[in-house]
Amino acid sequence: MIILGIDPGTRITGYGIIRVEGNRFRHVDNGCIIPPTKNPMEERLGYIFAEVEKLVRQHDIEILSLEKAFFAKNAASALKLGQCRGAIMVVAHRAEIPLFEYSPNEVKQAVTGSGRAQKDQMQKMIKMLLGLPEPPQADAADALAVALCHGQRYPLAQKIIA
Amino acid sequence: MIILGIDPGTRITGYGIIRVEGNRFRHVDNGCIIPPTKNPMEERLGYIFAEVEKLVRQHDIEILSLEKAFFAKNAASALKLGQCRGAIMVVAHRAEIPLFEYSPNEVKQAVTGSGRAQKDQMQKMIKMLLGLPEPPQADAADALAVALCHGQRYPLAQKIIA
Repeated sequence: MIILGIDPGTRITGYGIIRVEGNRFRHVDNGCIIPPTKNPMEERLGYIFAEVEKLVRQHDIEILSLEKAFFAKNAASALKLGQCRGAIMVVAHRAEIPLFEYSPNEVKQAVTGSGRAQKDQMQKMIKMLLGLPEPPQADAADALAVALCHGQRYPLAQKIIA
Repeated sequence: MIILGIDPGTRITGYGIIRVEGNRFRHVDNGCIIPPTKNPMEERLGYIFAEVEKLVRQHDIEILSLEKAFFAKNAASALKLGQCRGAIMVVAHRAEIPLFEYSPNEVKQAVTGSGRAQKDQMQKMIKMLLGLPEPPQADAADALAVALCHGQRYPLAQKIIA
């Protein structure tokens, strides 16, 4: 099972791709989608949409795991985050990929055993769990974490069969 | 010039299409996009995305005029509204249609001369301005109003040439 995890944001959208093999997780790819920020919002969203669609096609993604909104400081940032999430959710729907959402706390809990882990702690755990040479960039690490969160929680049946 | 006006919402997205001929506005179509609400959010957004894309293709839309967020009561509703707007903005970007946004006040001002018009007043003005047999449904009327707002404000040059 190949899972694309996404930590959405209009400035930086982190992505992380893992493959679940039996009860093991393999790192496939991670990175950041950074639209040119001077562009109008619809171009930035179009850029994110196209990049996510490309990842889905290139890596034969089977599941999209999305970080739930963290409940933005204010309505203006919630609206922006919503716009970014909307663009990504449409990719999942068009590609007929099941979409799952996990809250930041669920993700931290899954990866570090604590809902209160700090950013650098998350990055180190992701490096360790996936055997990476370096800790990934913070948004990419969050995206890998949300992919791992789905991998740990959901596909118990597949693991038992595997 | 053919303008698609949209009043976005995850429950009801109103749309209104007008054609600007010289200094006259002609009604083309109006209605509501109502996704099956029991479906998960990505399916609702996918439904809205597909319906707006269909309208753009069917009517050779040249401009998308979108109602700006009204600043939602709370972050949760701003996030939902943002998701809907994100899906629609991606349609505009993919179809390479310029997108313009007008605040509810600008729209009311353009249509009724007052920024404080009530819903039923807007519906009546839209009926009158476009010579419709009946006032359109409220969200469709708002969508026609945001299309008219763009038609009134922006294409002065085209009007002079026409």
